[in-house]
This record gives sequence, C-alpha cells and structure tokens, in this order.
Amino acid sequence: MQIHLERLLADIETYGKFGANQYGGITRPSFSKEDQEVRNRFIQELLDLGLTVTIDGAANIWGKWEGNGSKKGSIVIGSHLDSVPNGGKYDGPLGTLVAKEIVRTLIEDGIRLDHDLEIVSFTAEESNDFHLSTFGSRAFAGKLSAVELEHVIDSKGNHLKYELVKVGGDLERFPQMKELAKEKKAFIELHIEQGQRLEHQNISAAVIDKVVGMYRSKVTVTGETNHSGTTMMQHRRDALAAAAEMVLEVEFLCNKDETDIVGTVGRMQVFPNATNIVPGQVVFTFEIRGESTEKIDEMVRKIQEGWKGIAKRRQVQLQEDIFLKQAPITLDSEVVRILQKTAQEMSEPILTLASMAVHDAAQMATVTKSAMIFVKSIGGKSHCPAEYSVPKDIERAGNLMLKGILNLDRALI
Amino acid sequence: MQIHLERLLADIETYGKFGANQYGGITRPSFSKEDQEVRNRFIQELLDLGLTVTIDGAANIWGKWEGNGSKKGSIVIGSHLDSVPNGGKYDGPLGTLVAKEIVRTLIEDGIRLDHDLEIVSFTAEESNDFHLSTFGSRAFAGKLSAVELEHVIDSKGNHLKYELVKVGGDLERFPQMKELAKEKKAFIELHIEQGQRLEHQNISAAVIDKVVGMYRSKVTVTGETNHSGTTMMQHRRDALAAAAEMVLEVEFLCNKDETDIVGTVGRMQVFPNATNIVPGQVVFTFEIRGESTEKIDEMVRKIQEGWKGIAKRRQVQLQEDIFLKQAPITLDSEVVRILQKTAQEMSEPILTLASMAVHDAAQMATVTKSAMIFVKSIGGKSHCPAEYSVPKDIERAGNLMLKGILNLDRALI
Repeated sequence: MQIHLERLLADIETYGKFGANQYGGITRPSFSKEDQEVRNRFIQELLDLGLTVTIDGAANIWGKWEGNGSKKGSIVIGSHLDSVPNGGKYDGPLGTLVAKEIVRTLIEDGIRLDHDLEIVSFTAEESNDFHLSTFGSRAFAGKLSAVELEHVIDSKGNHLKYELVKVGGDLERFPQMKELAKEKKAFIELHIEQGQRLEHQNISAAVIDKVVGMYRSKVTVTGETNHSGTTMMQHRRDALAAAAEMVLEVEFLCNKDETDIVGTVGRMQVFPNATNIVPGQVVFTFEIRGESTEKIDEMVRKIQEGWKGIAKRRQVQLQEDIFLKQAPITLDSEVVRILQKTAQEMSEPILTLASMAVHDAAQMATVTKSAMIFVKSIGGKSHCPAEYSVPKDIERAGNLMLKGILNLDRALI
Repeated sequence: MQIHLERLLADIETYGKFGANQYGGITRPSFSKEDQEVRNRFIQELLDLGLTVTIDGAANIWGKWEGNGSKKGSIVIGSHLDSVPNGGKYDGPLGTLVAKEIVRTLIEDGIRLDHDLEIVSFTAEESNDFHLSTFGSRAFAGKLSAVELEHVIDSKGNHLKYELVKVGGDLERFPQMKELAKEKKAFIELHIEQGQRLEHQNISAAVIDKVVGMYRSKVTVTGETNHSGTTMMQHRRDALAAAAEMVLEVEFLCNKDETDIVGTVGRMQVFPNATNIVPGQVVFTFEIRGESTEKIDEMVRKIQEGWKGIAKRRQVQLQEDIFLKQAPITLDSEVVRILQKTAQEMSEPILTLASMAVHDAAQMATVTKSAMIFVKSIGGKSHCPAEYSVPKDIERAGNLMLKGILNLDRALI
C-alpha cells in the first residue's frame, strides 16, 4: 500500500492557489478571506471522503474516520493551512494534505484502523498579527484560556474572539477542548525541515524526537556618542564596533560547537544612527537554540564571558535582559521508536533529529503522545516562495508515515 | 596687552542662557526665537562698542571697527552663535565672543589697526533642519545661490527665504555678498577642538593649517534571510555577521594608521530585523576623514580590499555607493605662519593640527586668507551639555589670537 503521489502533488498545487500573490508566494494568514476559502475547501473535501467534520473552540478543523471499534480514542495526523506573508506552498499544507492522502489511501484500500483516525488542521500556527503563533494547538493543549484571549486585538484593532467566530471557533467552547484532548491517543505531524541537514546528507526524511529549547535576550551596549571627525580612533568608545565583536563572538562559539546549537543576532538598532556620529548605543537581540537546557546554558555562559571581556577592553557598558527561556520538549519515545522501526522495516534510511523550530506537535506533546516526520527541504528555504521539497522525498516520507500509523495503531492499546 | 578673561567668561555664561534647556544644554538653532534673541543682544553690544553693524543677505552679522586708514580692506574674526539641539556653551559662541573681547580690548587700549577689524557671526553653521550646515559662510563665499535656495523648506514646511528675512537676511541681497567678500583681507576663527588631541598633550591651543577631506559611502551587504532555528550555522550567509566583520575592518585599519585618519560606521540598518530571522541584508554608512586625498584614497582602497575578502569568504554580495568625496582644504600658509610665529614670540607652546570637522573658516578659505585657532576641549566633548574648555586655555588662545591679529595687520599689505 502506497500513497498516490500524483494526486497529492495536484492537491499541493490546488491549495497553493489560495492566497497566491504576484511574487509567486502565498499570503494566507489565519482568518483572512483566503484562509476562509481554503478552510471551506478542506472541510468540503473531508466531507466528500465520508469523514465526520467538527470545528473546535479554537477553530481547529477535525475530520474523523471511524475505526473498527476495537480500540478507544483516535490517532491524529495533520498540520496547518495558514501561511506567513509571501510564504511557500509546503509549510503547513504538506502535512495537512499528506494526512488527507493517507486517509484517502486507507479508505480506497478498505482498511479500517483499530483506533479512529483523525485529520487535524490547526488554526494560526504561523507568527501572526495577534502575536499568537501555534495558536490552535496551544489552545487545544489548554495553554491558552478564554479569559486571557478575551481582549486580544491585532494591529488593526480586530478582536481575536470575533475573528475566531468567523471561522467556526468560539471562546465559549474553549473549556470543551480539554475533554476532546482526552480522546487523542497520539499525534504525528509531517512537516518540511526548513533547514539543510537532510539535504546535506541526501536523506529524504527524519523522525523528530525533540524540539529545541530557546534563550532570548535584549542586549544593550553603551559606549560614548562622539563626533566622527574630531574623535581620534584611540579616544573612541564605539558601541557599534563593540556590538560587532559581540555578534562575531556568538557566531564563532556556536560554529565551534559540535552539536546542532544555533546562535543568532537577528535584530539590531544603532543610536543615534548618523553618518557623522560615532555610535553611543546599540541594542540587539540574542537567541540561542539547543537540544538541552544544559547545552544552552553552557553556550550562553561562554558567550557572556566573551562579551564581558570585549566590554571591559573597550570600556563599554553591557546590559542583558532575558525575555524568553523555553526548555527543550522531548517528544514521545514510543511513537519515535515505532517510526524508526517502521523506517527500518521499509529499508528507508532516515535521520533522527531535533526540530530547531516550534511546531504544533510541540504543543500537542503536553496532551498526547506526539512525534514528527520531517521532509527534506531544498536549500533549507522556508517562509518564502522558493520553499520546495522534491516529490520523491515527499512520497518516501508519506509512505513512512502511512506504515508508521498502521504500526502505531497496532502497538497502542 | 591681554584680553580680559573674567569679562569673557561672564559673556560666555550670559550667552549660554539664550536657549538654555532643562537638560543643562542649549537649544538655539538659527532662526528660532532664542536665536533671534541672542542675535539682537549681540548686535546691541556691537553697537554699544561703537562698531558699524551690517547684516548681509545670508543674515550674517558684521561689526566693523574702522582702522587708521593706512591699509585697505578688513581683517575678520568670529565664528557662529547657533547651536545644535541640546548643545554646549562653547561651540560657536566662544569664537564669536573672543572676537568681541579682542575688539573691546583694542578699543580700551586705544589701538587702531592699519586695516579695519571686523567681527562676524555666521548664520546656521550647525547641521539644521534645512540640511544646510555652514550656511552663512557658504553663502558668503558664493557657494550657495539665491536660485537654488528659493524653494528650500524644512521638515515643518517653513521656507528658508522667509526665515532669513526674519533675521535681517534676504535672498535678493545674495549677489551683493560677492562684492563684500572682496573687501576681506583675512579671516581667523577661534573654535573649540571638539577632540582630545590637545588635552592628551596638555597644550592649550593649536593653529589649524588644513581641514580634512572626507569620503562617504553607503554600503549594502546582501546575504540570505533564513530561519534562525532551522538554519544551521554552517548553512548561513548572515549579512549582519559579515557587516560586523566589515565594521571591525574599518576600525582595525584606521587604528593601525599612524596619521590622524579616522574611519566610522555611524549608521546601520538590518533587514528584516527580527529576533528569529538570520539577517539577509544590512545597509551601513562608511566615512573616512584624512589630511590628504592620497591618504584617504589609500585607506579606502585597503578597507575595500579587506571587505572583498570578507564578502568572498562569507558568500555575501557587497555594493558600495559613494555619496560624498570632499578634498582636504589647505588653509592660508601665510596666516598660519604668522600665528605660529606669534606663539613662538609669546613662548606659547602650540600644536599645528588639521581640523577634523568643517567650520566656517573652511568655507571662507575660498574667498580670503583663512586660518583657525583651536582651544583645548575637555574630554573632547562637543554638541552636548558637557562641552567645556578651561578658562586658562581660553585666555592663552585668546591672547595668541589678539597678538596674532596685530602681527597679521602689520604683515598684510
């Protein structure tokens, strides 16, 4: 039994038309007109397959294909359909459409699972104007309450609670999600890697066993604002030159590390920011992502030590304000093991990797056994029109998921 | 014969009250209410001294003390009275008030020069909202025409031509300045150094024999925008890390140079400038100031070579757009020599330096023999409330100027 690749590829193209823009990308944020249209199409297709469709309080779309009744609860597969502005066709839709393709294949082959099999499409997974990414899965996992969402508005003044209602959700139905979550036995999300680890090893798919932790801080470097002409080099306390060294220190130490730790200075502001003034202050963000809290803490400590030396030597002041400390999330070892074993049975070479980004599966991991499958991304490109995965890789990952579900269905009580 | 220090210091304090703000600084841009008030006081004081006061088309204030008639034309001394926002008491007023003090001293001592002696206060020397620094001296030197100024407005929509009229200027009188310039035999401007070269050698004053040249460009570094989590360190083309190396290259090469060359990256913008995105593009300004075009060109070439290597190694694109190339200005060697000789006669230790910033004297140099005297700045501070020069240094520089003028008056035909 195999998924039907051509049918899946056609689906990806069709769904890629919703919100397609003149730059070759897709702009389909949750609650937009384009999102509403793609949701309607998806719901109709699930109904056409004979599934029971429900929308929960967070407007997540669920399509249930009943099992043979021998085991209670459901195995859930899926991802999300919303996109970043000018994003690609794969981030989100690939996992959602592979889920649909798997159910379609099983139906055609007349195979019913012991458990119910559910497809899910989560609401507002991407960063959005409400500053609530992985919104749907977080809400489903009970991490967002109706009370705290009551007054959330976007930059245009739109209320989240009214936007939710437009697409079938409702803050008043939030408490019911806790009960719904109890019925879920496992969750597997297929997603593009968005990196180049698979491509560089020329492997189609990976099983994801954890989601990296994150450390984020705002760093303020204060030197002395001075005239760029009259202030000789040796009399300067240039905040930008100091910050430049600090940026390179982050890069150097993360590069030297043998693990998949990454460090980034993504945002920087210079003050007063004028051609003829030696910068007096620079503010930048610092981010470290790594597989364990210990590794993250150790790297942060090393970098801070390096920075201290730079600040001392350059006579600049350094202040760091931490604004995020997120521990790594371990995905379910049983589901991971079953997926690894499935790959072995299929003689499918896979990697076992940590996810460097947060996905819906990371949120779902707190309420059910969860794991992920990554598909090779070309050039690591994501959140842009050039986002691409090769059909052959998609097919191999999809078949791994299909067989993995069958094995999981048997293994779970 | 000596200037009266106490009287001069009292003047500095009095003038420092015009535009004094709550931060301890002075905000007195040209054409403001505070500028109009200080101009009125200055004019009244010149009249009280018995000088003939005229306002030219650019609203520069001239106060003439007639000579003994034995030589034609005038020796001019002065600077400016406008300030940057939240500036100090010395940048501009010191040179203007020392000029007034010198004339007052000569009058009291009953000494008339062979030439007429004129005090000038130039309009809008500082960077201002009309984007026309050294406005008054540039206009007087014939470098700004009435035609090109006709439609100049500031950010609030005020017309320069109407602002000018408020303080006694008029675009229609611009052509007359050419004739007025012919009467000027020499110009000496006393100004604070705004740097730390004098302080570090513990010398009160410097004679300025040239104004540095300048090279300014906009540099665009283009790498690849990527997800900060999923993009491993070795797969990045981080535009900010590349720009950071380039900033340090400027600093390193200018530091290594033995001359007074300075290089600055004062302005930087990062795109897309988000915590979780590896920067894809950075735009920064690059400035080099040096005493000769050859030295500037050589330094720019060396830095560009270094940058090319960085860009190649990091696989980022580099584009540089030059927006200013200003040759150094050599001040008048005769006036410089007379000032140096005067210092020798007085056993006053001085330095001979290049000015690292443009002043009114640099503009006047194109129409008359011009030079400058710098007074030691404490901590090199300028354009801020902490701007300060020690009374003793002011006195020594002022007396050097006084005797220098007497020597110049004798030497010039």
